[in-house]
Amino acid sequence: MHNYILKNENAVYFECGYSCDNEIFIKFGQRGFFITDSRYAIEARAVAQNCEVIESKDIIKDARLLLRRFGIKELMFNPSDFSYFEFSQLSRDLHINFKAKNEFSKLKRQIKRSDEIEILRYAAQLGASKFDELARAIMAGMSEKLINFNAGNILRDGGNLGLSFDPITAINANAAKAHALPLDECIKDSDLLLVDAGVKYHRYCSDRTRTVEFRDGFSFSKEQKFTNSKQNEIYQIVKEAQNLAIKAVKPGVRACDIDAAAREFIAKSGYGDKFFHSTGHGVGLDIHEFPIISPRNSSPVEVGMVFSIEPGIYLENEFGIRIEDVVVVTNDGCEVL
Amino acid sequence: MHNYILKNENAVYFECGYSCDNEIFIKFGQRGFFITDSRYAIEARAVAQNCEVIESKDIIKDARLLLRRFGIKELMFNPSDFSYFEFSQLSRDLHINFKAKNEFSKLKRQIKRSDEIEILRYAAQLGASKFDELARAIMAGMSEKLINFNAGNILRDGGNLGLSFDPITAINANAAKAHALPLDECIKDSDLLLVDAGVKYHRYCSDRTRTVEFRDGFSFSKEQKFTNSKQNEIYQIVKEAQNLAIKAVKPGVRACDIDAAAREFIAKSGYGDKFFHSTGHGVGLDIHEFPIISPRNSSPVEVGMVFSIEPGIYLENEFGIRIEDVVVVTNDGCEVL
Repeated sequence: MHNYILKNENAVYFECGYSCDNEIFIKFGQRGFFITDSRYAIEARAVAQNCEVIESKDIIKDARLLLRRFGIKELMFNPSDFSYFEFSQLSRDLHINFKAKNEFSKLKRQIKRSDEIEILRYAAQLGASKFDELARAIMAGMSEKLINFNAGNILRDGGNLGLSFDPITAINANAAKAHALPLDECIKDSDLLLVDAGVKYHRYCSDRTRTVEFRDGFSFSKEQKFTNSKQNEIYQIVKEAQNLAIKAVKPGVRACDIDAAAREFIAKSGYGDKFFHSTGHGVGLDIHEFPIISPRNSSPVEVGMVFSIEPGIYLENEFGIRIEDVVVVTNDGCEVL
Repeated sequence: MHNYILKNENAVYFECGYSCDNEIFIKFGQRGFFITDSRYAIEARAVAQNCEVIESKDIIKDARLLLRRFGIKELMFNPSDFSYFEFSQLSRDLHINFKAKNEFSKLKRQIKRSDEIEILRYAAQLGASKFDELARAIMAGMSEKLINFNAGNILRDGGNLGLSFDPITAINANAAKAHALPLDECIKDSDLLLVDAGVKYHRYCSDRTRTVEFRDGFSFSKEQKFTNSKQNEIYQIVKEAQNLAIKAVKPGVRACDIDAAAREFIAKSGYGDKFFHSTGHGVGLDIHEFPIISPRNSSPVEVGMVFSIEPGIYLENEFGIRIEDVVVVTNDGCEVL
């Protein structure tokens, strides 16, 4: 195991079960050090596992002192976690071989422990129940903006849950945009509604997308029948593509083959060029983790990996349809969380 | 004027009136370039001023191409805006003298234009009216967490406004912590309540703190009378300290002297060691801008600078009191926004 330094909340949380918004975590062999300021030091001492807490007025300066004190020669870091300024301050005149390794914490977190899977499963259940609550809160005449605002409030559950990301709530043509910003358009009967949203429970993310036809008493169930026949046709294609990809998941199957299961079905149905993103991404403490389920990832998936399966078809200026669930790889396939 | 490169939403917005979450902005003399991906290029072309929009699949790569094409020899950048990874990718083998200058955009934005002051004034009014709305929404028995959740919802005004930062809503001893996280404690009559919150209106921030005694029909007015005599005494000290600092603001007065006006009064009152942060900070597109109103800043303030005046006294495990308003420096003093 290398010595390493971390400055990312989720990476640090993974190491010691605590993190805050001003910290540096350093691991020398078996010893861990959590450097933070006086606002967080008390809580850190009470909660953080397997590390010494160092209260600091200048966390970069105290990290340097520690590196000097231990005579560290080589240290791994994620160059995406430090600003150029921070890294320059940290490394100046230290004569340490800083080894840049992008996202090494996320690589380490690919295979989830059983307690993590349990939390992710419960997060997914909470997320799904929030979709049900949202369905009851959406009324004809609400703007996309207001639907979005309500979605955020419902998901945050009076402050008990966090958001995995800002929810996407898109009507009709707006659902064809990859990252739709909510507009003033108001929802009416038979509109297509796409919702992509997730909660954070005990810091772990849920992630789910449903595309539905809005009407009084609608639900976010995957069983949908659209009045518009083109929407209906494409919905069934996306649903089957997702189903095929989920069925393809087994330990040892390459990520690109899971991707292909969805992509080839969509291509065969005539919409190959309308599905332009990956089929999925790992989900954990971060909403985007490894593995990436894409044509370019030929690594096999393994038991305990958790990722989304979310094919979509997007017709610019018309509508977009995406269906997403998160799965965990099991011994003989996968479980939809 | 130097050539420079920006990768910060507010800095870019200041240059051209548009920004998104994936962009690089480059200025060569009078020419501006806005590099972004296909999600934002259409909107950027419609909105961004004084620049050419370049649609890109890889904004770092296209920034490099542009720098090569123009044969740029020297380029200023803010080393806090780029991750070490991004800057390494950007600068590799380019033979450009990259000049690190921290926060140069914020330095440029210290003195606000009259249209910016108008927006900041309106943001402050909106923020204040949201405090009134929040006062009506807080009921005895609500937890800090729920008050915090409600504060966020009210400030965001159904999605019309943004948050300057996550609101602080702290009861009694929690108000003594500099960055209090909301707890499960429930508010009851005669509790001390500190609220520090702001909205974003047209991307500009408001920032306001009030400390009040909670009771049925309370208001966030600065006129407060606390049942607890120690709280009452300290409230009057903080209020007078703020008043003295506001009165000290005039063009040409050093920031440290404005700070001293509040700090010396608090010290004379016997609580010098209980006021351990700066008296204020600039407010604009970012919630923390320049000037910093602290003992260490001996630069004079100038007409058009906008900053907070927010002295506080914090008694650990008892309570904390802070009063904050944002002012703009005028020809003969300042205006409280």
